Amino acid sequence: MKVTFLGTSSAVPTKDRSLTSIALVMDGEYLLIDAGEGTQRRIIEAGLGFGRLNRIFITHLHGDHFLGLFPLLQTMGILRRTRPLEVFSPPGLGALIDSLAKHASFRVDFPLKLVEFSSEAKFEFKKYTVKVFPVEHGDTPTFGVKVVERPKPGKLDVELADRLGVPPIMRGLLKKGIPVRLPDGRVVSPEEVVGPPRPGKTVVYSSDTRPTERVIQEATEADLLIHDATFTSDLADRAEATGHSTVEEACEVALKARAARLALTHFSARYKEEDLREIEDRARVIFPNAFVARDLMAIEL
Amino acid sequence: MKVTFLGTSSAVPTKDRSLTSIALVMDGEYLLIDAGEGTQRRIIEAGLGFGRLNRIFITHLHGDHFLGLFPLLQTMGILRRTRPLEVFSPPGLGALIDSLAKHASFRVDFPLKLVEFSSEAKFEFKKYTVKVFPVEHGDTPTFGVKVVERPKPGKLDVELADRLGVPPIMRGLLKKGIPVRLPDGRVVSPEEVVGPPRPGKTVVYSSDTRPTERVIQEATEADLLIHDATFTSDLADRAEATGHSTVEEACEVALKARAARLALTHFSARYKEEDLREIEDRARVIFPNAFVARDLMAIEL
Repeated sequence: MKVTFLGTSSAVPTKDRSLTSIALVMDGEYLLIDAGEGTQRRIIEAGLGFGRLNRIFITHLHGDHFLGLFPLLQTMGILRRTRPLEVFSPPGLGALIDSLAKHASFRVDFPLKLVEFSSEAKFEFKKYTVKVFPVEHGDTPTFGVKVVERPKPGKLDVELADRLGVPPIMRGLLKKGIPVRLPDGRVVSPEEVVGPPRPGKTVVYSSDTRPTERVIQEATEADLLIHDATFTSDLADRAEATGHSTVEEACEVALKARAARLALTHFSARYKEEDLREIEDRARVIFPNAFVARDLMAIEL
Repeated sequence: MKVTFLGTSSAVPTKDRSLTSIALVMDGEYLLIDAGEGTQRRIIEAGLGFGRLNRIFITHLHGDHFLGLFPLLQTMGILRRTRPLEVFSPPGLGALIDSLAKHASFRVDFPLKLVEFSSEAKFEFKKYTVKVFPVEHGDTPTFGVKVVERPKPGKLDVELADRLGVPPIMRGLLKKGIPVRLPDGRVVSPEEVVGPPRPGKTVVYSSDTRPTERVIQEATEADLLIHDATFTSDLADRAEATGHSTVEEACEVALKARAARLALTHFSARYKEEDLREIEDRARVIFPNAFVARDLMAIEL
């Protein structure tokens, strides 16, 4: 799974940081979580393209997390998309799309399936599942997102298969769990040459939130926790007042969840590049596998 | 007057070109024409700031010309704007802002005055006037914009004023057209030392349009004509089908209007930087004072 941070600024963009959006690429297709203004431009810059993008999850209806969706939909239309797109959002997005269609020259000509959720929900797809769960961000209904990749087939031991005389053309069947009969009559079962299924990766995104038990619970032993880190602890009161977390609080959440890695994101525009380097150093004292997410940074899990 | 091109791509942004927006700065305040996605980020990059921006004109409700307005309004609110903002638009924008307030967590907390126009209109301000006039862009009501700076007071001939014994403190009165009485009793009239009022600059923006007589008429002897140049003439049929102009058509309009300069803009995403250089060369054969507008290019008139 490849995670690309398309925007890492909170509320207001900076010269270097665009508004929130995260792309998760899995096996030839990808999904977005949030789509702040500038998302489509970052998609172009990241070289991800628009064709394989088939699902978008919006965590809450604050402008910096969804106002890039409409221009993105427009671009998909201009590019003559025919492939369906699924959009998942707290209630309100559908009414906004209708309103744009009614009051502006804005049409979505490709199949758009909109799913609005107002409480915890789990969505099952072929390659992964997505759970949305409530977090704490003031009066605005806001959801964390947990993406769990489905287990992948085990690895075929090519050397062993060769030694057993399995022709290369039969390897695919074994990988799919199907026994094969060799030209000399012997039968080779998948268990002989294919390892155990490999667990899929788990990524949890907190969205905008105060530190909560629920995020700790969902992120337990996750491969990657992406957490709101709008302020540093000297502005803890502002974090509390605005429904955000400090860098230090995000680290504590990751520590309690025993997450493998922590991506800090959604930084206030007040922090400059040198501040972010200092923030990363300070975070690693609490949680050694923490890092500061930067626009267009891509990490492989 | 300073004109800054904040976005020069049509429909879809590119790595180098953001969506349409033009800033006109005059004497300490400024206005925007159009606000495609990414406008606020370009404002930051151009160093223009948000405080002095007090008027925004939207030429038509195609997404690439207005979807950056909502994130811009949100940012102004976050920056605790108290100064009023005036927005002028074809009908529909007010309903969209209401819809955002109703269905999303989107509020405009500062005084926003929205003026919707559906036909030709002229707006008078202290330092300039703005006329909006209909152009030809398919089924979508679309307006060109003509900004005329008010005449400025003539220049004071400092050497002459000194020779006549005018104390420096009295120069301001003369500039404002008020006669002054010198310490020795002599009266100096403004006409003696101040030149004739200097005409203000005129900028005309065609918005998205086929070449039309109306633009030629409005842009007659303009200091700057900014014209749709979405395609080159080999794609003249696409320009016609989509309600746009070719580079060559834009040059013809500028030529007929006897505009002083022509800024070509709104280029299709298919054109790369090397294409734009070639486009500029070709345009200058038809209209020598033509240039290709680029993101963040600023020109003084």
